Amino acid sequence: MPRATSHDVARLAGVSQPTVSRALREDPRVAEATRRRVAAAAAQLGYVASRRGRSLSTRTTGQVAVVVGDLGNAFYTEAIEHLHGELERAEQRMVVLTDAPEGAPATERLLDGSVDGAILLTTLLDSPAPRELADRGLPVVLLNRSVDDETVDACTSANADGAQAAAAQLAALGHERVGAILGPADTSTGRDREAGFRAGLAAHGIALPAARVRRGPFSHDTGHRALGELLAAAERPTAVFCANDVIAIGALNAARGLGVDVPTELTVIGFDDIAMAAWDAFRLTTVRQDLAAMARAAVALLLDRIGDPERPGSRVVVPTRLVLRGSHAARG
Amino acid sequence: MPRATSHDVARLAGVSQPTVSRALREDPRVAEATRRRVAAAAAQLGYVASRRGRSLSTRTTGQVAVVVGDLGNAFYTEAIEHLHGELERAEQRMVVLTDAPEGAPATERLLDGSVDGAILLTTLLDSPAPRELADRGLPVVLLNRSVDDETVDACTSANADGAQAAAAQLAALGHERVGAILGPADTSTGRDREAGFRAGLAAHGIALPAARVRRGPFSHDTGHRALGELLAAAERPTAVFCANDVIAIGALNAARGLGVDVPTELTVIGFDDIAMAAWDAFRLTTVRQDLAAMARAAVALLLDRIGDPERPGSRVVVPTRLVLRGSHAARG
Repeated sequence: MPRATSHDVARLAGVSQPTVSRALREDPRVAEATRRRVAAAAAQLGYVASRRGRSLSTRTTGQVAVVVGDLGNAFYTEAIEHLHGELERAEQRMVVLTDAPEGAPATERLLDGSVDGAILLTTLLDSPAPRELADRGLPVVLLNRSVDDETVDACTSANADGAQAAAAQLAALGHERVGAILGPADTSTGRDREAGFRAGLAAHGIALPAARVRRGPFSHDTGHRALGELLAAAERPTAVFCANDVIAIGALNAARGLGVDVPTELTVIGFDDIAMAAWDAFRLTTVRQDLAAMARAAVALLLDRIGDPERPGSRVVVPTRLVLRGSHAARG
Repeated sequence: MPRATSHDVARLAGVSQPTVSRALREDPRVAEATRRRVAAAAAQLGYVASRRGRSLSTRTTGQVAVVVGDLGNAFYTEAIEHLHGELERAEQRMVVLTDAPEGAPATERLLDGSVDGAILLTTLLDSPAPRELADRGLPVVLLNRSVDDETVDACTSANADGAQAAAAQLAALGHERVGAILGPADTSTGRDREAGFRAGLAAHGIALPAARVRRGPFSHDTGHRALGELLAAAERPTAVFCANDVIAIGALNAARGLGVDVPTELTVIGFDDIAMAAWDAFRLTTVRQDLAAMARAAVALLLDRIGDPERPGSRVVVPTRLVLRGSHAARG
């Protein structure tokens, strides 16, 4: 059975095709009796108004793009689930694009008229994409990672504060030989968590020599490899701060593989509080980001921006808190 | 700066608006010199041809929907990554819809003209959606979970064979008190893995009493809760087969929480071989699905179906294999 067209509906309802279009988008110029007749005919034929046709008349698509470069990181799939709920409440359809908005092709894809706006989760600090998209008329909000351009709307966690709290906790536990597995310096999350952690250690007079610092992508592999290197040193750290939970879980897996007990021989603290941080195998002490609040704020910023393209850039910073589980202990 | 329109491009290039549209879609009726002038004007103005406008003329969208009900399960995010790569190679844009295609609204969304086809990953056995979508003209392929209707294209693993191999392994290890944590009976994966596991045990004369069977959604929580129940029984199982890795990892976490050592006190076997199955914390012995081959086959089926809506339904079944890691041992 071929798909029914609006012409089929018009024939069955005994009206013109433009009347079908108007009736189905509830145009007040169409009489209620006609609207009902058209709706009945459409239902009988299984006709669904074309989003393409509709979007040409209303100039909106009802679609919002969520752009994320790393679906393998549970933090992003959890973020997507929160965004999905928030967008559904706003009657927006969520479209997930899984390549980073760094190259020109991704930017062009966002500008091809198929979405009303975009929420970018994995933007690099020096990316021109957010400014370029905004300049070319696409409402954009950054979530999680940000850029320094204050004209761009963004919602982030209090990353530096959270990492500073982790450092203060290590100091309170008496750790002096502290290590860190940091994220990429070209991301705001990597940069801000590093700055906060260093400031927190400095406030308690604890050194962080370069030999006890490793850096890499926010991945399990980064944590796994880096912890092996840190533990191979003559003066092993007694505690390691990891820039996100996926790195921390990589570090915990490496410790297990090496027979190093957490927390009696090694304290590990992460950042994010993804679901698996609470699993019995990890019981990870970590800095919690309030993803529900972040997703809510990002969607609100985007809808607001769609409604008012000219308003100044807005920043929302959501507080973090340290969640104490089983991967930390006082220095032995 | 407002977004440039095709009229702006026409003005700058000194041609009519329809000529702009034709030139940008490389219509042979447009002279090469004109095409170049239009392309230069479009580049200068930062004009991108509207996907909406383009789709009205070509009747294709270049978009394929991937519908998945459970992004929280790493199996699906890994599947999406494979599909993303395959669709990109086919120059198709992937749109991820995260609600199950069960209710009418999701079906309507797929039929609104915004996609050329759909790959469904989490379809229930009795779902009318695949047949309904196909009847209404949308090319559809089922991946991972299937339905019994053979007119619908589908790509699955050899689920029963894989589960049967797991049962044979438990028999070879000498286990007699065997338990199972099964998936939902209204999914083909849940049903077929159960049937294969039961057949494999029966072939070796091993009983599977109802008291040692639990069933639930394919989630960490299912495995965590069910293992606690199975271990609370007077006659504990010495080995448990789990219908997917996420359930198995829930079971491993529960065992750890209860102080039950895997594999000396308990053997656990999963199904999928997601990345975390290989983590040091789990070292899960599991039945591997070849997701790369499955994604490749599903995209090939879909493109084929888009090209030939009338061909008969086609089924691809990809072999599985048992991956032996550290969560199994001979009965103590």
